[in-house]
Amino acid sequence: GRKVLIVYAHQEPKSLNGSLKRVAVEELSKQGCSVTVSDLYAMQFEPRATRNDIVGCLHNSEEFNYGVETWEAYKRGGLSGDLIEEQKKVQEADLLIFQFPLYWFSMPAIMKGWMDRVLVQGFAHEFPKCYDSGLLKNKLALFSFTTGGSKEMYAKGGISGDIRYLLWPMQHGIMHFCGVKVLAPHICFAPEYVSEEKRKEMLIAWAQRLKTLWKEEPINCSPEWYFK
Amino acid sequence: GRKVLIVYAHQEPKSLNGSLKRVAVEELSKQGCSVTVSDLYAMQFEPRATRNDIVGCLHNSEEFNYGVETWEAYKRGGLSGDLIEEQKKVQEADLLIFQFPLYWFSMPAIMKGWMDRVLVQGFAHEFPKCYDSGLLKNKLALFSFTTGGSKEMYAKGGISGDIRYLLWPMQHGIMHFCGVKVLAPHICFAPEYVSEEKRKEMLIAWAQRLKTLWKEEPINCSPEWYFK
Repeated sequence: GRKVLIVYAHQEPKSLNGSLKRVAVEELSKQGCSVTVSDLYAMQFEPRATRNDIVGCLHNSEEFNYGVETWEAYKRGGLSGDLIEEQKKVQEADLLIFQFPLYWFSMPAIMKGWMDRVLVQGFAHEFPKCYDSGLLKNKLALFSFTTGGSKEMYAKGGISGDIRYLLWPMQHGIMHFCGVKVLAPHICFAPEYVSEEKRKEMLIAWAQRLKTLWKEEPINCSPEWYFK
Repeated sequence: GRKVLIVYAHQEPKSLNGSLKRVAVEELSKQGCSVTVSDLYAMQFEPRATRNDIVGCLHNSEEFNYGVETWEAYKRGGLSGDLIEEQKKVQEADLLIFQFPLYWFSMPAIMKGWMDRVLVQGFAHEFPKCYDSGLLKNKLALFSFTTGGSKEMYAKGGISGDIRYLLWPMQHGIMHFCGVKVLAPHICFAPEYVSEEKRKEMLIAWAQRLKTLWKEEPINCSPEWYFK
């Protein structure tokens, strides 16, 4: 059975994001996958990258460098418990699903903090092991999110620009950098401004897509996909 | 005298980011500007968008919607104290400088949390008052940051793509959306991999730029600037 980690960032279980998460757990479990959820708000996940992420002495206590310190701590098993826990989940997963409402053309800070703190050097990448040779290769990722703006606003030539423009930092800058292959994003546009009926259709469409997810080919994560 | 708010996100005062912040405070003060710094890590700024940001009763306690609740709370003066404090600083500022190390093609989570929580509807935008008619028009913003990757990696055709690609969500999606005009970014590439001498030159170049900053024209914040 395949293993899936859903990293989920919404405060309200009754939200559409909450329902999308639930649908994914149900559908993937039905397929025989083993599904783990990191419910970031419920966990009160810490987004701030600080000295607290390193247990014990620092490599250089004169001048704190987060990247160097977490790299060194990772190598000696000295990262804080919450990070080790998340890294274990990532390590075991074949697929990472990120489920969130788009905040300011990006993920909410609590999820950005997950990226900042979990994907440390040594674990997810280690120069020159990045991009196609990143340490998390052979894994898949999928960004599933809701927007405030409409599909028209996020069209090419629309006021907010092609939605793909804002996927570049998340899909290429983070996932591809770590060697993870990226499936097409799953986007629910402006659920707050549509009928209950339409929102139900959004949930059905997501369940439907998940049925054949494992047959999908990753996108070609190059500038052409994003900016052409 | 003009007013400047520096939103600063680095854990270590001795870092290059710390020095860049100090240089800006010194140079702008010398010019007669009044400079305020929000030192996010020192403030232990909360990045998580939660129910705690609303004082008193919720507008809809059945189903928590962060965007709606903070909008309503803003209108009745019911946002948490730390947000009111930051909004006051933004309101008074002519120029916002964001000083940070690039984390995963974006700002550190603690700074993303500042965007998520401070720039609430009603204060920074209120549909259809967004983009050129955003509520923070007549203000300027400048993103000043350091990178891990080299200038070559962030060149057009480089493995990390043109650095402008990753500026889209921050400059257009956040600042332009709120009506803020954006000055050209100030980027120090890979300071950890250059000599102490070169790092000193980076500080001098920043101080130099600040001397004539008020004569600069904002960039043309359209897809052409980012993706051409």
